[in-house]
Amino acid sequence: MPDDPRPPLGDISPETFRRHAHEVADWIADYLAGVGDLPVLPRVRPGDVSGALPASPPEEPEPLDAILRDFREIIVPGTTHWNHPRFHAYFCSSGSGPGILGEALAAALNVNAMVWRSGPAPTELEKVALDWLRDMLGLPGTFDGHIEDTASVGNLVALAAAREHATGGQAREKGLAGGPPLRVYASEEAHSSVRKAAMVLGLGTEGVRGIPTDDAFRMRPDALEAALAEDRRAGWKPMAVAATVGTTSTTSVDPVPALAGVCEREGIWLHVDAAYGGSMGAVPEFRHVLDGCDRADSFVVNPHKWLFVPIDLSAVYSRRPDMVRRAFSLVPPYLMTPEDGAARNLMDYGPALGRRFRALKLWMVIRAFGTRGLAERIRAHVALAAELAGWVDGAEGWERMAPTPMSLVLLRHVPRPGVSEDALEKHNRELMEAVNATGRAFLSHTLVRGRFAIRVAVGNLRTTREDVEEVWGLLRKKAGEVGG
Amino acid sequence: MPDDPRPPLGDISPETFRRHAHEVADWIADYLAGVGDLPVLPRVRPGDVSGALPASPPEEPEPLDAILRDFREIIVPGTTHWNHPRFHAYFCSSGSGPGILGEALAAALNVNAMVWRSGPAPTELEKVALDWLRDMLGLPGTFDGHIEDTASVGNLVALAAAREHATGGQAREKGLAGGPPLRVYASEEAHSSVRKAAMVLGLGTEGVRGIPTDDAFRMRPDALEAALAEDRRAGWKPMAVAATVGTTSTTSVDPVPALAGVCEREGIWLHVDAAYGGSMGAVPEFRHVLDGCDRADSFVVNPHKWLFVPIDLSAVYSRRPDMVRRAFSLVPPYLMTPEDGAARNLMDYGPALGRRFRALKLWMVIRAFGTRGLAERIRAHVALAAELAGWVDGAEGWERMAPTPMSLVLLRHVPRPGVSEDALEKHNRELMEAVNATGRAFLSHTLVRGRFAIRVAVGNLRTTREDVEEVWGLLRKKAGEVGG
Repeated sequence: MPDDPRPPLGDISPETFRRHAHEVADWIADYLAGVGDLPVLPRVRPGDVSGALPASPPEEPEPLDAILRDFREIIVPGTTHWNHPRFHAYFCSSGSGPGILGEALAAALNVNAMVWRSGPAPTELEKVALDWLRDMLGLPGTFDGHIEDTASVGNLVALAAAREHATGGQAREKGLAGGPPLRVYASEEAHSSVRKAAMVLGLGTEGVRGIPTDDAFRMRPDALEAALAEDRRAGWKPMAVAATVGTTSTTSVDPVPALAGVCEREGIWLHVDAAYGGSMGAVPEFRHVLDGCDRADSFVVNPHKWLFVPIDLSAVYSRRPDMVRRAFSLVPPYLMTPEDGAARNLMDYGPALGRRFRALKLWMVIRAFGTRGLAERIRAHVALAAELAGWVDGAEGWERMAPTPMSLVLLRHVPRPGVSEDALEKHNRELMEAVNATGRAFLSHTLVRGRFAIRVAVGNLRTTREDVEEVWGLLRKKAGEVGG
Repeated sequence: MPDDPRPPLGDISPETFRRHAHEVADWIADYLAGVGDLPVLPRVRPGDVSGALPASPPEEPEPLDAILRDFREIIVPGTTHWNHPRFHAYFCSSGSGPGILGEALAAALNVNAMVWRSGPAPTELEKVALDWLRDMLGLPGTFDGHIEDTASVGNLVALAAAREHATGGQAREKGLAGGPPLRVYASEEAHSSVRKAAMVLGLGTEGVRGIPTDDAFRMRPDALEAALAEDRRAGWKPMAVAATVGTTSTTSVDPVPALAGVCEREGIWLHVDAAYGGSMGAVPEFRHVLDGCDRADSFVVNPHKWLFVPIDLSAVYSRRPDMVRRAFSLVPPYLMTPEDGAARNLMDYGPALGRRFRALKLWMVIRAFGTRGLAERIRAHVALAAELAGWVDGAEGWERMAPTPMSLVLLRHVPRPGVSEDALEKHNRELMEAVNATGRAFLSHTLVRGRFAIRVAVGNLRTTREDVEEVWGLLRKKAGEVGG
C-alpha cells in the first residue's frame, strides 16, 4: 500500500549498515593503535555509567550516530582496557586484530552450531582448530576437544564427565541423592572455579578437599594419597583429582606425572586445569610444564588468556569423550537430524544447547601468527617477567613472593625490616592502589600463604620492555610516597 | 638491535588491521544484503569442510588475504545461513546490523567483566540493558537480571537458585548426597534443557517429572498437584516448577497464573522458561502470554532468539538474586576488590567467572529499533504465521498440527485419507528434506503427541510475506513430487 504510513520493517538499510561498519572499522583501528594512551582503569565510581544512561528504553528508533557517540563518550571512558599494554592484573587477555576480525565475521554469520546441520563449517572448524591447538601444545592425538566459554565451564564439563565415570554412569539418570558423597581433590592453590563447579554439580563445597602444597606451591602427591585413604575410610567416594598447570596465585605447576600415577593406581579421573599455563606448551623449551598431561582424562586451556584470542574461548579436551557425552547428551525429537551418527553435534558436549561460532577467531589467530609466531610472543613474555623478577631480586626493600615459572611476578615492598604482616599488607595494598590510580598500569593482588602480594602478570600482546620498565618505575616511585 | 633478524612482536600492524577491517566491513555489508540469494542449507556432507583444511597448523604467519579467502571460499559455502530470510527451522535467530556492530566493538574492547573493577561500563550496561528489556516486556521491577550465553544455562542458573531455596541453602556446602531426592516439574512439552540442567545439577534425569498437558499442549495444574502429592508421599522433595511460555514443539503457553497459585501454596520455586515466547511481551496486545510471570521466582528470555541480537545472549531474571548468589558466589582473595559491596560483580551470578561484554549489542539493538520498532517486527511475524496458518487450514490435503499462538506453524501433508501414521511420517520427512534440499528454505520438525510435524518458524528479521509465500509454494510443489 503506497499510503501505508508505517516504516518498512526488517533490518537497518544496507547503506546505513555499510557506512557505520566502516566507521566502526576505523574506530577499532584507532582504538587498537592508541589504547596505550588511555587510562587502563577508568576514572569512574560505581553508578557513574548507569547514572549517565536513560532509565527507560527509547520508544522510537535512534540513529546509529547517536548510539556510537554514546559508546565513545560514556562506555569507552567507563571501561577497563584489557588490551592496554600495561594491563598486568589477573591474567592478561588481549584481543589480537585477527581475533577481532574473526569475532566480527562470526557475529555476521550468526550461526548456532548446536547440531552439525545447523552449522556444518562451524562444527568442523571447531574440531580442526582444536586439533591444531592440541598439536601445537604437544598434547596427545587421543585428546578430543570442544569449545566452552570459560575455564570455569570447562572445568565443570570435565568434572561432570568424571562424575559419570565415578558413578558408573549412574549420575546422569539417578542423580546424587541416593549415592555416596563424591569428592574432588585439588591443591589449596587451585582456582576457585573447581570449587564452584562442585557446587553446581551437586557435590557442594565440601565435595572439594584442598591438598597441601610444597614450598613451590605444588600439590603434594603424598598428601593426596593420605587424603584419599582417609576419605575412603570415612565413606567418601573420590571422583576426580584436579591438577593445575599454572595456578592463579603463583603459576605453580602441580607434579602431574606423580598425580597421574596416583590416579591410575586408584582408578580416579585426572583433570588438568591449564587455563593459563597450557599455552606454555606452544614453546618447545617450556613444554615440560605439560609433562604427564598426556595421562590426564581431561584438560582445559584458554586461548583467550595467553593466545591472543578475544574472550571467550576455553578449549576442553578429553580422552573420554564418551563420558562427556554421557554427562551432557540429551536429544529430543526436534533436534534429531539425518546426520546424527555420521557427524558430531556440538550440543552433546556441554551444558549449553546453542553454540556460537567461536572457532573462527582461534583458527584465524593461529593462521595469522603461525605456531612459531605465537611461541615467540609467549617466549618474550616469559623473558620480560624473568627480567622484572631479576629487578625485584636486586632491589633493596623489595621481596619476590614466589618463584616465577611462567610470566607472573609476585612481589611486595618492605619499607623497613621488622614491619608487621598487617602493616605490610596495608602498605602494599595502598601501593597497588596508588599505581592503579595513576591510570598508567593496572595490577592485582593475591594472598601467598596468607601474605599480601602484588601480582604483575605479563602476557598482553601489546606489552613491550618499556612498559614493564615503566611499571617497575611506578612501583618504586609510589612505594616512597604511600605510608609505610 | 638493528641487525636483529626477528620480526617485531605484538599484534599485526595497525595499517594491516585497518585495511582488513574495512574489507571485512564491506564483506559483511554485502553478505547481509545478499544472504537471501545463498542456499540456506549448504551443499556439503559431513567431513567436506574439515577435509578441505590442512590437518596441521601453519608454522609461519599467513597473510590475512589468504585467511579471508579461505573464509569466503570454504567456511561460508559450508555454513547454514541463520540470517537467511527463509530460515524457518528451530526458532529464528537473526543478527541485525546494530547487533553485529555491537559484537565487533565488544570484541575490540575485549573486556572480561568478572568484577566491576575489571569492566565498570560493561557491568553497569548489563544492568541498564536488562532493566530496559524487563520494562519493555512488562515484567515487574522486582526482577533482577543478568546475562548468560543460552537459555540452557539460564535455566540451569534458575534451577540452581531453586536448589538453594529448596534445601534451605544447604546444597551449596553439603551437596545432594545426604539429602532427599529433589524433583523439578515441567510439562511433557518443556524444552530438553530443563532435563539437562537437572542432570548437571546432580538431580539426574529422574529428577524431572513430566506433567501431562491439555489439548493445547499446556501443563495441567491439576496433574501437577496430583504429581506433587504423589511424589511427596514417595519421599521426593519438590524443588521447582518449570513453566514454559512458548514451548519448542508448539509454542504453547503454560497457565502460569494457576501454576503460580500451586507454587505459592506449596512453597515451591516457580521458574518460567520464556526463551522464545518472552519477546511477545514487547507487543502490547500479545503481552497477555506473560500473565502471571510477575509471580515467578525466576524467568528466562533470549534476546538472541526473537529480538534480533546475534547469538549468544540469554537474559535471566529473578526476584531472589540472593538465592542466585548463594548458588554461585565464591570469592577467592585474588578476586576481592575495593568496590565489593558497593557494586555488583557479575561473577557472582552464574557458573562462569569470565564475562564477555554481551550487553553492548542488546543496548544497541534496543536503541536502533526502539521498543516500538521491535514490537512492530514481532507483530509482523505473528501476522505472517497467522496468514500461513490460514493457507494451511484452507488447503485440501494439509493439516495444521497445533494451534498457532505465536509465530510457529506446525503442519503436515496428508496425501489421501486413511494413510497410516508411519507412512505419513515417512512422507512428511521426505517432503521436508525435499524442500530443504532446494536450498531455498530450511524447515525443521518435531513430534506432536508422537506424530511427525513440519515446523515453519517465522521470526527472522529479513523475512517478508513473499518469503513465506515461496515456502508455502515449495511445500505444495514438493508434496506432489515425493512419494506418499
